[in-house]
Amino acid sequence: MDSTFRRTPNIHLQDLIDGLTSGNRVFLSKSITLVESKREDDKKLGAELIDQIIGNTGKSLRIGITGVPGVGKSTFIEAFGKKLTAAGKEVAVLSVDPSSNRTRGSILGDKTRMDELSKDPNAFIRPSAAGSSLGGVASNTREAILLCEAAGFDIIIVETVGVGQSETVVKDMVDYFLLLMLAGGGDELQGIKRGIMEMADHIVINKADGSNIKAAKKAREDYKNAVHLFPPNESDWIIPVGVCSAIEKTGIDEVWIEIEKYESHIHGNGWFEENRKRQSIRWFHERIQAKLEETFYAKPNIKKEIKKREELISSQKLSVRKAVDELFS
Amino acid sequence: MDSTFRRTPNIHLQDLIDGLTSGNRVFLSKSITLVESKREDDKKLGAELIDQIIGNTGKSLRIGITGVPGVGKSTFIEAFGKKLTAAGKEVAVLSVDPSSNRTRGSILGDKTRMDELSKDPNAFIRPSAAGSSLGGVASNTREAILLCEAAGFDIIIVETVGVGQSETVVKDMVDYFLLLMLAGGGDELQGIKRGIMEMADHIVINKADGSNIKAAKKAREDYKNAVHLFPPNESDWIIPVGVCSAIEKTGIDEVWIEIEKYESHIHGNGWFEENRKRQSIRWFHERIQAKLEETFYAKPNIKKEIKKREELISSQKLSVRKAVDELFS
Repeated sequence: MDSTFRRTPNIHLQDLIDGLTSGNRVFLSKSITLVESKREDDKKLGAELIDQIIGNTGKSLRIGITGVPGVGKSTFIEAFGKKLTAAGKEVAVLSVDPSSNRTRGSILGDKTRMDELSKDPNAFIRPSAAGSSLGGVASNTREAILLCEAAGFDIIIVETVGVGQSETVVKDMVDYFLLLMLAGGGDELQGIKRGIMEMADHIVINKADGSNIKAAKKAREDYKNAVHLFPPNESDWIIPVGVCSAIEKTGIDEVWIEIEKYESHIHGNGWFEENRKRQSIRWFHERIQAKLEETFYAKPNIKKEIKKREELISSQKLSVRKAVDELFS
Repeated sequence: MDSTFRRTPNIHLQDLIDGLTSGNRVFLSKSITLVESKREDDKKLGAELIDQIIGNTGKSLRIGITGVPGVGKSTFIEAFGKKLTAAGKEVAVLSVDPSSNRTRGSILGDKTRMDELSKDPNAFIRPSAAGSSLGGVASNTREAILLCEAAGFDIIIVETVGVGQSETVVKDMVDYFLLLMLAGGGDELQGIKRGIMEMADHIVINKADGSNIKAAKKAREDYKNAVHLFPPNESDWIIPVGVCSAIEKTGIDEVWIEIEKYESHIHGNGWFEENRKRQSIRWFHERIQAKLEETFYAKPNIKKEIKKREELISSQKLSVRKAVDELFS
């Protein structure tokens, strides 16, 4: 996508904004590419763009979906997304995957993973930004959410890769966090951290089909019991546990029903607003932190100075305290 | 302890070092108090002290002990520590508790919690440094470890409060990480994050006494099964699972036997050295990061400028990107 954007360097900000806010997918893509760009001139323009549309954002429902690899996230999003577009919603699908590399064709990857949805005029699928740091990738996705909202999308789905810390960062950019699980073996088997289960607003056991239905229903009971042991969450919501089969498209309606219940619950008790505020302020402080490090590590010779001290420290010739004092003096 | 130190302001660094390295407990306490002090003059002296003794550190075995409140950490450390001193070891017990406040008498608290050990001439018990940030408290504990090593202690036990992130920071300052568990209910019941189980080098189910023995042995089998599902850890060590009764002092010898096995394992494959190096380098970078924030937030009016932008951001009048740019321009 970068090249597409680069081919139109003289694009006027106003044209971009007009195209974007009219819901034009090409302009939306260009806008996301712009804010993801690391070129100084692009950065300036990107900052302007985001600042111009910021008042026009926030009206979507932001849904995070996580689960370990193999749980069937793409199949679920395909079925769930189609259900939403059929109900007249405009759905954007973003993802956070620090391991992704645009040039390795992850767009194609994502689109083929969601074949029907990618052809749906009311859906927009955008793969994760490429990037070395999870924080950077997450920040790009947060801006992509804003741009999709400015483009008029009702539902923004953010998918995690379900490994590392990506769940935590996605949880912190959505209103509602859905955890997909598999039946059998308990969470140890599934590589789900208990922290993640606690983060969830809804747990759904996927692949409840064929000979697996019984196990899925058993798992639902187990998780229902586990959920009652969790400390109450900030939104004061008891995590529902359901089953579905993304491949047979069963249990998908029920997921949406729970989401609507949750939405009215958090609008009722003010958590929706409060959570959005807290998230944006945390994001602000994360970016301050990132900027501080960026600036520091960009200093001439700093890497050399750090490397030298790392060696002295690991051979016990220098204390961490003195090393830090030296670097900052 | 601060006051003790403050009463001897003209103490000479060399006297402190001599007293400390001779193993004098009073000088050890003073040294720890000095490096924990936030006073500028103390900081300078503390940096000197640490730097002078750094070459003299690293010879102990650093043992982290965690488990949820109520698992019996203190009782275990008391029984375990007494066993070690009886075997001729000098044992220091430190703890990481960001919630602790020295002035609320947590020294007395810790000492009464470990009544016998605190009276043992070959043991030294020091409560957690007071502090607002976990990072700061952890850094103080890391320096306390170095000072205890310079004072000639063979074994340094670092206890966590078993809540929040304290396990993670303690794991990152020890050679060996022991997780105490309780029988029954599985990890959901016990508030143990699966991440913590994976961090452990040894899992021991405590309170295997009276009518609880059967349940404890059952739990040992369950955890043994779970452990085999974990990805191999960096030290290439299969986590043993045992049972003990700290109160009846059974199973304590077995813990020490496993520790000795582990110690020769990691000395054999080079992980001991490698892990120590990585830990100190991570500590170095953590302190750089902390210093960057400290310096930034100390700028005049910065808090006011941030607050103002937080409000604009949460009311969608300003984008995070622009807010950060403004702060740094």
